[in-house]
Amino acid sequence: MTDTRKNSHFIENMEEYISQIQLLLENIAFSVNPANQQESANPDRHSPVEDIQHERHLSELLLKIDTLHPADFACILEAIPLVQRMLLWESIKSESKGKILIAASGAVRESLITTMSHDALLHAVELLDSNEISNLSADFPQSMMRDLFKSRSIEEREQLRTAMSFTRDTVGTLMDFDVVTIRKDATVESVLRYLRRLDNLPAHTDQLFVVDRDNIYLGTLPLSLLLVNEPEIKISTLMNFNNLTLHPDYKAQQAAQAFERYALASVPVLDEDNKLLGRVSISSAKDFIRAKAKRSVLNLSGLHEEEDIFSSVWKSAKNRWMWLSLNLCFAFFASRVISGFEDTIVRLVALAALMPIVAIVAVSSANQTATNTIHSLALGQITDRNVQRVLIKELAISLLNGIIWGSFSGIFAYLLYKNMALGLVIAFAMLLSLILGALVGIVIPLTLHKFGRYSIFGSNILLAAITTSGSFFIFLELATLFLGN
Amino acid sequence: MTDTRKNSHFIENMEEYISQIQLLLENIAFSVNPANQQESANPDRHSPVEDIQHERHLSELLLKIDTLHPADFACILEAIPLVQRMLLWESIKSESKGKILIAASGAVRESLITTMSHDALLHAVELLDSNEISNLSADFPQSMMRDLFKSRSIEEREQLRTAMSFTRDTVGTLMDFDVVTIRKDATVESVLRYLRRLDNLPAHTDQLFVVDRDNIYLGTLPLSLLLVNEPEIKISTLMNFNNLTLHPDYKAQQAAQAFERYALASVPVLDEDNKLLGRVSISSAKDFIRAKAKRSVLNLSGLHEEEDIFSSVWKSAKNRWMWLSLNLCFAFFASRVISGFEDTIVRLVALAALMPIVAIVAVSSANQTATNTIHSLALGQITDRNVQRVLIKELAISLLNGIIWGSFSGIFAYLLYKNMALGLVIAFAMLLSLILGALVGIVIPLTLHKFGRYSIFGSNILLAAITTSGSFFIFLELATLFLGN
Repeated sequence: MTDTRKNSHFIENMEEYISQIQLLLENIAFSVNPANQQESANPDRHSPVEDIQHERHLSELLLKIDTLHPADFACILEAIPLVQRMLLWESIKSESKGKILIAASGAVRESLITTMSHDALLHAVELLDSNEISNLSADFPQSMMRDLFKSRSIEEREQLRTAMSFTRDTVGTLMDFDVVTIRKDATVESVLRYLRRLDNLPAHTDQLFVVDRDNIYLGTLPLSLLLVNEPEIKISTLMNFNNLTLHPDYKAQQAAQAFERYALASVPVLDEDNKLLGRVSISSAKDFIRAKAKRSVLNLSGLHEEEDIFSSVWKSAKNRWMWLSLNLCFAFFASRVISGFEDTIVRLVALAALMPIVAIVAVSSANQTATNTIHSLALGQITDRNVQRVLIKELAISLLNGIIWGSFSGIFAYLLYKNMALGLVIAFAMLLSLILGALVGIVIPLTLHKFGRYSIFGSNILLAAITTSGSFFIFLELATLFLGN
Repeated sequence: MTDTRKNSHFIENMEEYISQIQLLLENIAFSVNPANQQESANPDRHSPVEDIQHERHLSELLLKIDTLHPADFACILEAIPLVQRMLLWESIKSESKGKILIAASGAVRESLITTMSHDALLHAVELLDSNEISNLSADFPQSMMRDLFKSRSIEEREQLRTAMSFTRDTVGTLMDFDVVTIRKDATVESVLRYLRRLDNLPAHTDQLFVVDRDNIYLGTLPLSLLLVNEPEIKISTLMNFNNLTLHPDYKAQQAAQAFERYALASVPVLDEDNKLLGRVSISSAKDFIRAKAKRSVLNLSGLHEEEDIFSSVWKSAKNRWMWLSLNLCFAFFASRVISGFEDTIVRLVALAALMPIVAIVAVSSANQTATNTIHSLALGQITDRNVQRVLIKELAISLLNGIIWGSFSGIFAYLLYKNMALGLVIAFAMLLSLILGALVGIVIPLTLHKFGRYSIFGSNILLAAITTSGSFFIFLELATLFLGN
């Protein structure tokens, strides 16, 4: 019995696969330019044995990467050092390179494109769709785009022009032009006959688009309906009328959400007059979703963009500076708040040791509230009608938490310093700081949400700055008032 | 010209839609039991005008929710207070309720199920697949499952038993039994004829599965190939041999990753003998991905599970306690580190004000490193071969950052306190703390990854605890050594 799983494209253990490829690449690099010979790399000088070994490694590598999916290729290229990356890149068939460039992360894509000659690049993107080229175009040299235009048919030029005209992050940038259209007065049989005349259907075709003679969109015909119905039935009696359609100016995020929520494979895109322009397929929707998800995880800890783990230290460091400098500003501010209470601290140095407790717990709690708020906002669940309820609930939770964790902290402080007043001060400071945290955790995301473009980047740091400084202030102010003598 | 977009199922502005539904529900609740009348809610006592109004609101509501997708229903139910939620739940057709329960978040699902009678629940899940029921079963009362078994056909009972036998988070739990199988010696024409005899194809059918008479899996036939090829062509010449197959014991995460990476619609699931057991469709893969993504965002700030924004304060608070108590422990520890240096602080109180600066920047930087590490680990990009390189790079970045931000902090401290030694101490402390942060940001994720089940939950707090306490220690120890007199 043959195990069909053996020749699957799917890589079950990416880590191991990458290691194997790296080993092969190292061997190839070694046999091309052995470290023990100091001569220039001239293959003619190699012994026959070395040549055979080299051939063997190379063919093993080519076999290993032959059936790889572009997304896996991109992942492997991202995981290996620059020299090996270039060696692997050269071994890849030129017609596969376009799709890999699309799948690769920004930094790695850049590193690949810079090594390619004008012609190699032109050849690599030859087979790409207009919308794919348009998405890559930012990384291309100007002259390249001119030649690309020239190499395309008139229809493709028009499409490319259209694709490049859309604003970033709109549905238009996700749209491709691969649509199969049919007429509503056709029958199942005539449609089947028509399809048989095509070489293949566009990837991710789960439905055909029904249009009239002016290309006005009328509805869709799922392939499944085409297959289970009798030949003589008219398309008009089978087609779906009220399914989702998109407009090129819609936010890409909106389209991506629909794909995620409804598990769609393709959605038609119409202009204002309901003319069919193209479609968004799950393939580009998923790329957008992945990129977006990556971005938001990275933004959470202030990384501006995905880093190439083998790019220069300088480049990676720059990626992190904005965030660190903002944090430093916030830290300076918190420091100034504390220094206002230096007299109090000198009188009771225990305050210096205790003050981080209040801040750490308050920031954690504020983060929890903010995460909940952001999550509910993203789902559209916080409306004008219930925002007050949400606020009251969060305040109630922080009140409850303040009593519990405030008591713990108070007891902790009392046991250590045998000072009842100090225990009470930290307990109340904790309570007030948690309430502050809850307010901040709701108000900041809500405000940023109201002002359109929401950024986790800024919200996170603002939240930490206000809650930390606020809790230092509350604790030290209470201490000054009640432990003053 | 009619705008087909008008009668789309797709909700363009969820926030607004929820508000509209809430308004209708409030009106209905009011007319059922007007607040101004203190009598028991007896519809017979209402004036005819009220009855008419009530009817109008009700039918408006029913119209509004008639074509809603289960995922949207779930989202709306999650966004409205309990009383309204129950009112809306009662208005929903019983046959739609099963799918909505599946789409709803855990907490909201629980709140819905507890209000349903035994029979109502049985009726609601009648139309669900075996794997869907199995996924809900944890929330069902025991007696319910017994009756559910009884109500099913023998084949369905077997499937249900199989579905319930899989371990949590394996491919088995995502698998459904909706497969259309064909034989390899059939022709395109005979397959088309066979399909026409079916009422419909299972949702998300993009390919048929080719099996032999013992149900051994041989390959797949994409619908698109079926459609573009001539009737007399044999399936055996068209079918795909080496596409992805899954095993029920594989990790669900692995399957989900494949769906995401390759934009698949369905994947066959085989047992050890290559017998076709069922398939995973994009629909269940996407549910898994969404739930997982949600969980990891929530875990980042220590929320144990998704909260129902209208559940009790008590319940929500409990969801957050684990995290807060861990943070409190870590805060106590950091506090003890500081208190070891109370003598030094008394001598130079500026230290108390300056010490948070080092900690805040070091933690931010450690978080950035950890995010990068976790991201690369998830993609399988950190292998034994390059872990050293990654470590060196991160250390180099933190060295660079330490020099830059250390200098800033040093200058800041010098300008404020006119104390050169103090400036130097904070500068060096920053440098060392950033290096500590880089080490921690790599070592913690790597170690947790090595020990299998990786949890952001624990890693986050460990990272903050070590970096914060460490940087307090470094700063105060340096100060004690060099500012000692």
